[in-house]
Amino acid sequence: MEPQKKLINSVDSCVDEALCGLIRANAGLSLLQGHRVVLRSDLDNLRGKVALLSGGGSGHEPAHGGYVGAGMLSAAVAGGVFASPPPASILAAIMSLHNAGASGVLLIVKNYTGDRLNFGLAAEQARNHGVAVDMVIVAEDCAFDRPSKAGRRGLCGTIFIHKLAGALAEEGSSLDQIVAKVTEVLKGIGTLGVSLSPCSVPGCLPSFNLPPGDMELGLGIHGEPGIKRSKVASADEVVKTMMDHMTNPNSQSYLPLKSGDSVVLCVNNLGALSCLEMAVVTRAAIICLENLGVVVARVMSGSFMTSLEMAGMSLTLMLANEEILRLFDAKTAAPAWPNLSTARVSGHSYITGPPAMGTRPQDDKHSEGPLSPVMRKSLERVCSTLLEKQEELNSLDRAAGDGDCGNTHAQAARAIQEWLQDHVVPGCPGKLLSVLAGLVQEKMGGSSGALYSLFLTAAAGQVTEGWSNAAAWASAMHAGTQAMRRYGGADPGDRTMLDALCPAVDELMKLTTAPPGGQMVILQAAVQKAASGAEETRNLTARAGRASYIAAERVTLPDPGAVAVAAILRAVQESLEGQK
Amino acid sequence: MEPQKKLINSVDSCVDEALCGLIRANAGLSLLQGHRVVLRSDLDNLRGKVALLSGGGSGHEPAHGGYVGAGMLSAAVAGGVFASPPPASILAAIMSLHNAGASGVLLIVKNYTGDRLNFGLAAEQARNHGVAVDMVIVAEDCAFDRPSKAGRRGLCGTIFIHKLAGALAEEGSSLDQIVAKVTEVLKGIGTLGVSLSPCSVPGCLPSFNLPPGDMELGLGIHGEPGIKRSKVASADEVVKTMMDHMTNPNSQSYLPLKSGDSVVLCVNNLGALSCLEMAVVTRAAIICLENLGVVVARVMSGSFMTSLEMAGMSLTLMLANEEILRLFDAKTAAPAWPNLSTARVSGHSYITGPPAMGTRPQDDKHSEGPLSPVMRKSLERVCSTLLEKQEELNSLDRAAGDGDCGNTHAQAARAIQEWLQDHVVPGCPGKLLSVLAGLVQEKMGGSSGALYSLFLTAAAGQVTEGWSNAAAWASAMHAGTQAMRRYGGADPGDRTMLDALCPAVDELMKLTTAPPGGQMVILQAAVQKAASGAEETRNLTARAGRASYIAAERVTLPDPGAVAVAAILRAVQESLEGQK
Repeated sequence: MEPQKKLINSVDSCVDEALCGLIRANAGLSLLQGHRVVLRSDLDNLRGKVALLSGGGSGHEPAHGGYVGAGMLSAAVAGGVFASPPPASILAAIMSLHNAGASGVLLIVKNYTGDRLNFGLAAEQARNHGVAVDMVIVAEDCAFDRPSKAGRRGLCGTIFIHKLAGALAEEGSSLDQIVAKVTEVLKGIGTLGVSLSPCSVPGCLPSFNLPPGDMELGLGIHGEPGIKRSKVASADEVVKTMMDHMTNPNSQSYLPLKSGDSVVLCVNNLGALSCLEMAVVTRAAIICLENLGVVVARVMSGSFMTSLEMAGMSLTLMLANEEILRLFDAKTAAPAWPNLSTARVSGHSYITGPPAMGTRPQDDKHSEGPLSPVMRKSLERVCSTLLEKQEELNSLDRAAGDGDCGNTHAQAARAIQEWLQDHVVPGCPGKLLSVLAGLVQEKMGGSSGALYSLFLTAAAGQVTEGWSNAAAWASAMHAGTQAMRRYGGADPGDRTMLDALCPAVDELMKLTTAPPGGQMVILQAAVQKAASGAEETRNLTARAGRASYIAAERVTLPDPGAVAVAAILRAVQESLEGQK
Repeated sequence: MEPQKKLINSVDSCVDEALCGLIRANAGLSLLQGHRVVLRSDLDNLRGKVALLSGGGSGHEPAHGGYVGAGMLSAAVAGGVFASPPPASILAAIMSLHNAGASGVLLIVKNYTGDRLNFGLAAEQARNHGVAVDMVIVAEDCAFDRPSKAGRRGLCGTIFIHKLAGALAEEGSSLDQIVAKVTEVLKGIGTLGVSLSPCSVPGCLPSFNLPPGDMELGLGIHGEPGIKRSKVASADEVVKTMMDHMTNPNSQSYLPLKSGDSVVLCVNNLGALSCLEMAVVTRAAIICLENLGVVVARVMSGSFMTSLEMAGMSLTLMLANEEILRLFDAKTAAPAWPNLSTARVSGHSYITGPPAMGTRPQDDKHSEGPLSPVMRKSLERVCSTLLEKQEELNSLDRAAGDGDCGNTHAQAARAIQEWLQDHVVPGCPGKLLSVLAGLVQEKMGGSSGALYSLFLTAAAGQVTEGWSNAAAWASAMHAGTQAMRRYGGADPGDRTMLDALCPAVDELMKLTTAPPGGQMVILQAAVQKAASGAEETRNLTARAGRASYIAAERVTLPDPGAVAVAAILRAVQESLEGQK
């Protein structure tokens, strides 16, 4: 078994290059020379304020470098992947902040032995250099009912502390005030994770084995396995299980959450869960909390404290009051902080009523006009023609497509026949075309349905009340054809229905200037153009539609869509001639 | 082979639940009743302005619903996973925006036949309802040298159009002005994707097969395979290949990019690439562009237009001028828009010089004091004692740890011996302790090194110049022990070195009040306390350190760390007694 291939340059360089990528992409960040330390590039703005430093192993991006910026961290120090950073780099970061004029430096440290020791050592050294330095340990993991001596792990809740301490520092709070405030807030934060996959440190095998279809509950962010393994349940069930575990008073590491409490929720992608799944989980978490009577004040959902490419997520809850929300909502320049609304989530009215649209055209009550009987006859002729040609069209389509072109047209024909049985044909041709567009869109299906519907809808706009004359019909045909070309993306010569339609429409446009007596001659000529256009598609290479996927030499019959158009136009012509 | 298990409730409900999750989490969004349409909840603010509508298949989250908000989209309509939304929902969205008083509605559509037809149909229907509606088609894929009739695909560049059009609409531009502007901008946008994995539509098998270690270049965002398959190369090589392909003038779909041009870069996670890899790729892309003489004006890096859980990324470039950057930088309330700096990326000074720190304590030149010879003798005795006990300590450690406790202490002893050979022992005890802290941190390694270094560093702060008396030494020992407890997280009784150290320090604290004549008695008592404390660790259960992972009944020997501490203290006592 080989380590998973990753999109990096080398195992040795990936941490430094990732830091470089973060810093190069964000003009507000800089790198401390000789160290894996991300600094605010506007260090001058720290003068007289408390500076905040966090950090830890890499592999948790955007933590912690992405949270550096006014209103959050002043600096972040990174170790190797899942490894604590060396004290010398932590000390260098502290001294940089101190030298910039910070009144004190607060270290925000996740509760891992290595981080505690290394940050602690740097803190003691900095004190010996005369720096006012303090430390808060974040330990908000809710996984273990009886945590070991090492205590609860520090997880995604850490970024809440970055945010609140950052807002306090920005508004000028003292080191002691910030420590007191976040120590209080920490009691009301809890996190639990779940994953459908392990992750693998670059160059290494996966951190644990998890059979497909299994999930691991209560894991940390360093690829260590969790507290319980089970089959992947539904998102709602998984979220419910997690919430129950996090808030169970029988666990020593539970979050005291009760009905009426207000919380900030963070749904954190551990790395490789799809955004679709993340959104499903976010919904489940909000609803689960609301079902417990909890007010969800704010929600953040995304990748905040990852574990490389682990396909999992963690839920973090923070009990919130007005003061906490004020700090949470404060502005920050940190690039990884999301663009959140400052409005309360629970209670926001999230359904907008449908727009006033009227009924569907095909359901409208219409009144007949003088031309209604003519149009009814034409439609009946078109429908019967398409039904007669069903097998011929299918057969043509079998040579170049999926063989259902006749069926599709027959569906439209039957839908129109049914509609004609219990509706009057409206006197306004535009209304009739809208009815037909609605029927075709609903019953014909596929690209053909959409294209005919487009044609009819665009045409309908040209033959409004009072325009039921030949010139308007020609303009309508032209507009319909143009819409088909514009949205469908095909042109004449591409071996589509346009090869019958376009030459016919060109001919029909003569109606706009022709005397009334010459109209039928023009219609006959147009129908002839359509027929020959359809016939000539034999010689064309398909460049659009399904036939374009088939080798040109295998397609020697005419295009069925073009044949159908020619047949429809001929049916209209014959119907009009028969009524003379 | 079974479809991959996902964290959803059901295949049928996942799209609607994901939309609900997005909308519930963001108070600025609402859902159009009866449709998969995300609307701004402040529709009133659209009055008199152009409204923007986009959308397409689901599975590309946060696109497009995440881009709804003031300054970007007014609404987004979603289809099923990778399926175009139905015209009825698109029309309902348009009518909602129109009814809210929008002066016009611009549809921003990615170039896929289904989307073009369905958005086109809705547009034509809306026109027949009297709505001023227009459409721009985004087709910025650079994959195909000779694109088919269907044209270039619409990919992540779409969100640039959302942003620029959104800023124009917000500042009151007309529909025609916006269409003209974005049509111009679109000519300067190009995108190319690469992936190390396929993705799978919920309930379905993966979209294509890709052997581990292979990558697919030039793929779309619907799981369709790309134009070229190869072994996964280094991040730098992959980025170079992509840039070359995107800007190759022999391709009909190339981006005309030349030295001196200014660009906005988007590095888009297709779903499951780790954030670490994303940052490495971002660095590579910035450097590659700068090597071409291109000015990188802005960079966004993250998940913007995903393809479910595809482990890949796409690069999008947009040629930019001052006007485009002004629109790009404009504020937006859209939840998926990142917190970007408005400063130029290329040319930003991103290295900060190291802080003034002085030399390492162990390299400093020190001057001797009256007590220097005494302290040298004591140190020599401690070192020789630890070297004598190396095997005994290793043997104790083999029973409960990894058997290297003696080696670790011997390393420290040898480092101190070497240092003593060519350095004077400083007259200030605080300085000496700082020197020892530095040596131990550097040479001893592991948790023991960090803990001793912590002890020595914290102690050093208590015995500064002029305080070289017994009481100060007692306070120093106390401060060191406290630091060890605080940062190490262990307490007396946990079977660690603290079980020897703490009883000794309690005894030593009597020095703070004892008369000078009683000092040696107190030291002797303290050493005795350390020895008995170490011996009694036989009966303790390990709750910290490596021994805590071993069953208690198997650990019946004393803790080697505690034994070492007792030996060190005895060596100091014997050395001081010998010098009387």
